[in-house]
Amino acid sequence: MKLATVEAGGQTHAALQVAQGYLPLPARNLSEFLQDTDWLSIASTVLAEHRSDSLLPTAEARLLNPVPAPAKVICCGLNYADHILEMGRELPLYPTLFAKFADTLADPGSEIISTASNNVDWEAELAVVIGTKITNATEEEATAAIAGYTVANDVSMRDWQRRTLQWFQGKAFDGTTPLGPVLVTTDELDPESGLEVICRVNGIEVQRGNTSTFVFSAARLISYISEFTTLRPGDVVLTGTPGGVGMGMEPARFLADGDELQTEIPGIGTLKNRVRLRVNTPIPSH
Amino acid sequence: MKLATVEAGGQTHAALQVAQGYLPLPARNLSEFLQDTDWLSIASTVLAEHRSDSLLPTAEARLLNPVPAPAKVICCGLNYADHILEMGRELPLYPTLFAKFADTLADPGSEIISTASNNVDWEAELAVVIGTKITNATEEEATAAIAGYTVANDVSMRDWQRRTLQWFQGKAFDGTTPLGPVLVTTDELDPESGLEVICRVNGIEVQRGNTSTFVFSAARLISYISEFTTLRPGDVVLTGTPGGVGMGMEPARFLADGDELQTEIPGIGTLKNRVRLRVNTPIPSH
Repeated sequence: MKLATVEAGGQTHAALQVAQGYLPLPARNLSEFLQDTDWLSIASTVLAEHRSDSLLPTAEARLLNPVPAPAKVICCGLNYADHILEMGRELPLYPTLFAKFADTLADPGSEIISTASNNVDWEAELAVVIGTKITNATEEEATAAIAGYTVANDVSMRDWQRRTLQWFQGKAFDGTTPLGPVLVTTDELDPESGLEVICRVNGIEVQRGNTSTFVFSAARLISYISEFTTLRPGDVVLTGTPGGVGMGMEPARFLADGDELQTEIPGIGTLKNRVRLRVNTPIPSH
Repeated sequence: MKLATVEAGGQTHAALQVAQGYLPLPARNLSEFLQDTDWLSIASTVLAEHRSDSLLPTAEARLLNPVPAPAKVICCGLNYADHILEMGRELPLYPTLFAKFADTLADPGSEIISTASNNVDWEAELAVVIGTKITNATEEEATAAIAGYTVANDVSMRDWQRRTLQWFQGKAFDGTTPLGPVLVTTDELDPESGLEVICRVNGIEVQRGNTSTFVFSAARLISYISEFTTLRPGDVVLTGTPGGVGMGMEPARFLADGDELQTEIPGIGTLKNRVRLRVNTPIPSH
């Protein structure tokens, strides 16, 4: 199933995407919908009944960030084995992790507005959304706790990211990590068998990786994270980006005002975000 | 004023600490109370009326983490100038920042249970609690947005912290950062004029720093953070720890099962947390 958070008729709805449009689910968004422990059977029932008279008005429907209210957004750094090996590095023993906030997320079609950096870079990623509360989970339990998959771009302010050893401040600008356009449940997709993760700038491909080359599988990542913190329905885990980021180019390339960023995972969909540079604050000094 | 979140009679209350005990405030905890834009005048009125017949039963009152539901907990690394200089390092141009979650926080008297690390270390810190929503704030605006100050211990799992370049995973274990015992409003305390930050293990002092030696003042930190993300009432900013952590000792010293960790800032209060090592999972491997 493809689940979404949709704005239509001035309201937001959790919804099920079908060929004819969107069938509403009983919640305002997927963050809320996933709190119901019966979310999967509720969605399955709505799909089976498929009451076309209940379809949301498609013409005016706009896809939003499917999960607007995660308590935790946890991201993995280096995770594509082919890219790490081609850079001459050793495969890591442990996942490199950092955090974002719900405020960091953005809608699949929204503008990415940079107010304090001209070093805006792309990082196409597969995002995992949690569907069941887990603590100290085995990989098998972690797999069962995944609600589904969506697309993310961990847009990064490289100057801020490199100001100190901790990447967080370059990765946590409000409204800079688009997520969506839909959440695809685990029966339809398996990252282990290989999903293409693609990034394009103004239509030109800059990144293409395959999730079958993950150092840490989605299940391994979630199991590992759950050793130190509880994950709950609606929480989001970003799985790392393949090679081809702007910072790695010679010379480094960053996004320009007006650039269109496309982030695609076939089988899920494409994020289309226009970049706006609105840097109006001087670089802070002492 | 000294504000608190108190458990009494099987319920939790936001409360005002007075000599005779606790006067209830109209919310279940301070995270909720601070959402009311009139929180300061409401608390002032309760204090002025000082109805002793409304006092919570003190005998059974237990102080909890004052702000249990922050959407953001943001921490600063190296921030005590004297300690940085004595280590022969240069003062940083930018604050080193990383994140925790609400789940990371713990009550002022709770046990700190380590389930996956035997390298448990202390970091006594002043914590700042936000009282007004701010974005892109000047230092003056940041100062005005502070609700008050409390005590924290950024208890860190050094082995996990050092597994990768990003500290996050060693700093985000559930229930390992005690906060409290009360929130002291800004009219009573000024970190710029100097607060002592003290840590003791089994009664022996291991850390003592003074907030007058901050590289980045509380206002500067909050102004800086607000350049990239909105801060809201109840959000928490940890301001860094002075010298004297266990990792810096020769040989390194970590907390043992049963150790009592005391974290004190005179004028605010003391956290007393017993450490429990319950490491029952093998170190993960591939």
